Amino acid sequence: MNNVTIVGSGNWGSVAAKLIASNTINLRSFNDEVRMWVYEETLPSGEKLSDVINQTNENVKYLPGVKLGKNVVADPDLMNAVKNANLLVFVTPHQFMEGVCKRLVGKIRKDAEGISLVKGMEVKREGPSLISTLISNQLGINCSVLMGANIADEIAKEEFSEATVGYRRDKAAAERWVQLFNTPYFSVTSVQDVEGVEMCGTLKNIVAVAAGLIDGLKMGNNTKAAIMRIGLKEMLAFSKLLFPSVKDSTLFESCGVADLITTCLGGRNRKVAEAFALNGGKRSFDELEEQMLKGQKLQGVLTAKEVHEVMVTRGWVDMFPLFKAVYEISSGFLPPTAIVEFNNNIPHHIKNKL
Amino acid sequence: MNNVTIVGSGNWGSVAAKLIASNTINLRSFNDEVRMWVYEETLPSGEKLSDVINQTNENVKYLPGVKLGKNVVADPDLMNAVKNANLLVFVTPHQFMEGVCKRLVGKIRKDAEGISLVKGMEVKREGPSLISTLISNQLGINCSVLMGANIADEIAKEEFSEATVGYRRDKAAAERWVQLFNTPYFSVTSVQDVEGVEMCGTLKNIVAVAAGLIDGLKMGNNTKAAIMRIGLKEMLAFSKLLFPSVKDSTLFESCGVADLITTCLGGRNRKVAEAFALNGGKRSFDELEEQMLKGQKLQGVLTAKEVHEVMVTRGWVDMFPLFKAVYEISSGFLPPTAIVEFNNNIPHHIKNKL
Repeated sequence: MNNVTIVGSGNWGSVAAKLIASNTINLRSFNDEVRMWVYEETLPSGEKLSDVINQTNENVKYLPGVKLGKNVVADPDLMNAVKNANLLVFVTPHQFMEGVCKRLVGKIRKDAEGISLVKGMEVKREGPSLISTLISNQLGINCSVLMGANIADEIAKEEFSEATVGYRRDKAAAERWVQLFNTPYFSVTSVQDVEGVEMCGTLKNIVAVAAGLIDGLKMGNNTKAAIMRIGLKEMLAFSKLLFPSVKDSTLFESCGVADLITTCLGGRNRKVAEAFALNGGKRSFDELEEQMLKGQKLQGVLTAKEVHEVMVTRGWVDMFPLFKAVYEISSGFLPPTAIVEFNNNIPHHIKNKL
Repeated sequence: MNNVTIVGSGNWGSVAAKLIASNTINLRSFNDEVRMWVYEETLPSGEKLSDVINQTNENVKYLPGVKLGKNVVADPDLMNAVKNANLLVFVTPHQFMEGVCKRLVGKIRKDAEGISLVKGMEVKREGPSLISTLISNQLGINCSVLMGANIADEIAKEEFSEATVGYRRDKAAAERWVQLFNTPYFSVTSVQDVEGVEMCGTLKNIVAVAAGLIDGLKMGNNTKAAIMRIGLKEMLAFSKLLFPSVKDSTLFESCGVADLITTCLGGRNRKVAEAFALNGGKRSFDELEEQMLKGQKLQGVLTAKEVHEVMVTRGWVDMFPLFKAVYEISSGFLPPTAIVEFNNNIPHHIKNKL
């Protein structure tokens, strides 16, 4: 029998609990109970968040109004939450992942398997640090990822959407994750390309900044579609340079083109970039970010900077004109209009390769 | 020296004339003059359309307010227009192509090359009839295609966009077309996949109907992105079944993902499908079409029907659940909401192959 624990209970973690709980109750090879580790908080009412979740079956703070399923058990004790689980779903904010992993070393089952739902890994100068690799290395377990066009609130409302499981080698493990997440309104497929799936989840945010600039410049759908397409090709080319095993076909999965579309139509990266262009670049991203996002950091601008560092170090800058332009515009070196001018100086033989 | 004639002078044909004329004037291997065949009309003022174009340098009827270039010569005589040309750009409405070709048999230069900008070929039961094949067969010339995210009015305003030349074998001929169309704001690349490029241009309209239904059902971006992604995969799979030479990579070109995005964000197929869903399917596509499009036919609904016939004949229906759903919804057999339910009855092993 498989035991599932969700490490995290934010907005996306709570939706994951709802999806999984609707499946464990019907699938014979899974225990019904889904344990969800809750980073304990005291609510304004004085009650503990985990107690309220267990009483009401609802994460009143991060997913109010949605029943998680009676078989979801909130547990504020991380060690207790994971001790019986052989299936660990990681869905904490990105910056907490390293600390959580450290606490879990030696505390989990030897036969455990992990899956990461954490988007926004860091791209450092020496290369990107994949969250799935961090988990694998620190805990000595196999770790897959689940990414896709997944706006949590839409899935909570049971609107049709999709996701992609990326796995390294173990197809059977991947199929178990698919079984655990898949519902009639949440269609999950698996691909053997953990790096491709995870890179898509990060790099799309750079393209979303570019798309937002186009919106702010009041350009048409032709131009926006062109920029998204160029972005998709740069995402693929950059991922393949870093990880030669990345497959072209991964881009046709939910984690690729679909997540890119969602992110470029909505999403905060697009929105702040639109405001930046509307202001003619006169107000910095930092300033707009603070005003519009209230403390949240803009992933796309950060990733553009990190990717640019990697490109400079490796001599790849001229191969990625769109990524370069997003970096130079968001850093204030070029005006927002440069987003449609980056193309002019590229020799045709390079452009054809993009 | 190369001589260019544009066979057609509508909205897109006039933009093509503008693009080409800006290049022939600068390129040594091309004569400056670009001849444009005009299907003669008498304007309300009593003047002939071709005379007005030649006097004002503007297609006052189909692209008012945009100068075409002084080296564009409107010619109402088809035979005279083509007689010196070795480069023929076909851009008439789809339904006139067969008649135009018949008139041109034996009247063009033996060394002529063609390129078709005509979207919306017919998919008949015995397979799709590609416009480029029609031209090739009837005139005995090599024929490439140019497709992409090309809303004519945006290109006329010189907003950045892209296009794809699809060619059969002759790379040098394709590169000449690229040279002829490419400008700083209109970025053209070539791929050796004439069928892939042309199929994308047709099948995208089915997906646009699906996207419009999602909009009319007031569903979120997750769902729309998922539907567009599934549509893209069905476009690829269907094209490859009909033409095994079609390349996956063609979908990453402007004619593929970018044209799909433009068409699903704007465009009349999306718009009428949205109205259809908003009315709960109670007013037929025919009725909405008549009211909203004033005589223009809705390509997506027609193509869905034709593609469905091909699928039935060849036993492919269950492999294309989205195409099937669009056909069944637009024919009134299923309600608009079926567009997000088509997925439920597909065995997982088939879904994974899509």
